[in-house]
Amino acid sequence: MTSVDDRERQVLERIDKARRRRAKIKDERITLAHGAGGKATHTLIEAVFLEAFRNPLLEPLEDQAVLSLGGPRLAFTTDSFVVHPLFFPGGDIGELAVNGTVNDLAMSGARPRYLSSGFIVEEGLPTEDLVRIAESMARAAEAAGVQIVTGDTKVVERGKADGCYINTAGVGVISHDLTLGASRARPGDVVLVSGPIGDHGITIMLARGELDIEADLTSDTAPLADLVDRLLAAAPGVRCLRDATRGGVATVLNEVARASDVAVVLDERAVPVRTEVRGASEILGIDPLYVACEGRFIAVVAPEDADAALDALRTHPQGTEAAVIGQVKADPPSLVLLKTEFGGTRIVDVLVGDPLPRIC
Amino acid sequence: MTSVDDRERQVLERIDKARRRRAKIKDERITLAHGAGGKATHTLIEAVFLEAFRNPLLEPLEDQAVLSLGGPRLAFTTDSFVVHPLFFPGGDIGELAVNGTVNDLAMSGARPRYLSSGFIVEEGLPTEDLVRIAESMARAAEAAGVQIVTGDTKVVERGKADGCYINTAGVGVISHDLTLGASRARPGDVVLVSGPIGDHGITIMLARGELDIEADLTSDTAPLADLVDRLLAAAPGVRCLRDATRGGVATVLNEVARASDVAVVLDERAVPVRTEVRGASEILGIDPLYVACEGRFIAVVAPEDADAALDALRTHPQGTEAAVIGQVKADPPSLVLLKTEFGGTRIVDVLVGDPLPRIC
Repeated sequence: MTSVDDRERQVLERIDKARRRRAKIKDERITLAHGAGGKATHTLIEAVFLEAFRNPLLEPLEDQAVLSLGGPRLAFTTDSFVVHPLFFPGGDIGELAVNGTVNDLAMSGARPRYLSSGFIVEEGLPTEDLVRIAESMARAAEAAGVQIVTGDTKVVERGKADGCYINTAGVGVISHDLTLGASRARPGDVVLVSGPIGDHGITIMLARGELDIEADLTSDTAPLADLVDRLLAAAPGVRCLRDATRGGVATVLNEVARASDVAVVLDERAVPVRTEVRGASEILGIDPLYVACEGRFIAVVAPEDADAALDALRTHPQGTEAAVIGQVKADPPSLVLLKTEFGGTRIVDVLVGDPLPRIC
Repeated sequence: MTSVDDRERQVLERIDKARRRRAKIKDERITLAHGAGGKATHTLIEAVFLEAFRNPLLEPLEDQAVLSLGGPRLAFTTDSFVVHPLFFPGGDIGELAVNGTVNDLAMSGARPRYLSSGFIVEEGLPTEDLVRIAESMARAAEAAGVQIVTGDTKVVERGKADGCYINTAGVGVISHDLTLGASRARPGDVVLVSGPIGDHGITIMLARGELDIEADLTSDTAPLADLVDRLLAAAPGVRCLRDATRGGVATVLNEVARASDVAVVLDERAVPVRTEVRGASEILGIDPLYVACEGRFIAVVAPEDADAALDALRTHPQGTEAAVIGQVKADPPSLVLLKTEFGGTRIVDVLVGDPLPRIC
């Protein structure tokens, strides 16, 4: 195990050096792109927040920190939700706020246990909307097996906060010995996705009604801890799990490629995308690989466990459409490549700009 | 000890019944008063959030939940900060966001350890403001002995979020056997405050520049965990600690009076208030008892430990102006009374409306 830890330390040191070199934020003002999850977000996080807060637990920049406080290992995470509109087909901001944090915990292999909820409410929000959102959070918490145990409510003046913003933080318990992380992918590993991608992002875009498209599509928002439990029990060779939210599968895999210093090669034909998502994406001029899901994750799995992993996912109701979508290679390091349906290969770069603002 | 627990259970049941009876929210829309920390906030929390999320850890409605996850007891809390302006004499939103959550943890007697930070940034915020805020958070975290280990950044369109809102959640470790809580006050207990009240709220009001008042006043924002450590070591008879933030000392003591089914009788002459705060409060028509502090707390202490508690506070740099300000009595239950400087007695009710919006 020492050699793996050594390798990891070296990789982290390399990434850290590269970060310090690269992480200069040139924009004089914050733009929507800084919230898109792509290149600008990474620069902002590394140049401003990591630079200021630097510590070993934050450094890996995973979606959760893993803590030891004298008992079992704990996962700790936070997410703010600013989705617009507040209610959309298949869910609402409340359900999203619970599932999003539950899933960030689950991606470390933790069993999500306790959530906080911080509301920033706009003056004038109909009380019944707030009740509806709270009830939706309660249902989502029950479905995910978590309790909302502490909270805070602020109210800001009319015109701010678009109805409401919600922050949830979460604590979960890691009861296995696996260490999962974006820096753990190795050449030869297999890349799986737990289901069709992009449903959530496209649902939100259509719900805004600015596009003259109708599609029979709902958000994929769902708590993923059960599915992850099943996967980890069947396939201890899981290296890394990431839910493909803001920035989509492309962003998540770029993070893995970069953190592990490997190439990720995707097979376009293998990536499950619903016809409605594909159609709407074409009209919007967006690649579905960049569209957010709120109930799908990517798993990077050691080759010997790939079949068991796929089986485990497919036999769970949330993973029936899971698929192997690519492989990890040694070269070219830090890049995601896509083998297209037409036999070509192109680079799937980190997202620049924000084609889908405020989707979560 | 069983009898204390039994009594507590009975009190909680009584409160719970009362809440279910009372907690009907009549307003059809959310108003600024719902964010003021007073009567409307309580109704909102009880009628909407507690009603939806109800569970034994949330039920006491303390400022933090106490968790057991197989190791030491943990405290878990969250707070969103929407203070306007972002920078003010003596601090900024970043420092406030760290100290606020550190203090909510400290009030349970926990040693604050790990923080999350969730930023909601307004498009157009000068990057250097964000850097300044992050650096201020880093300094505050170091001063408080905590690490910011996980985070999230969202960006919303220009005109929303007033520069930025920050949510921090925190985890701390409770390494003593004391159980502190608003329901633990007993007739005969002594009420202390750790220093002069209202500095923060008045500083924010003056920083907005809408009033033609100048005063040599700075926010009292400070991390209180060291001071609490010292207090608990010297006075194991501490029943309850509450930082007097939104809604001020009056609100906190009303929560204690209600949760413990006791009267709190304050001596107006004993309450430390700086001349500048008193003056500005008079002009603003506000009672300093309702003005927020961000670095002061109320301690309810068993009578035999009151002297030791006061000594412990006064010999710490943050508590030099600590004072005994009142006593707990049996009657009239659930009320806070003030013995005025002129020898009269008046009820200090829960805050109605919001005289000081967006002060934290």
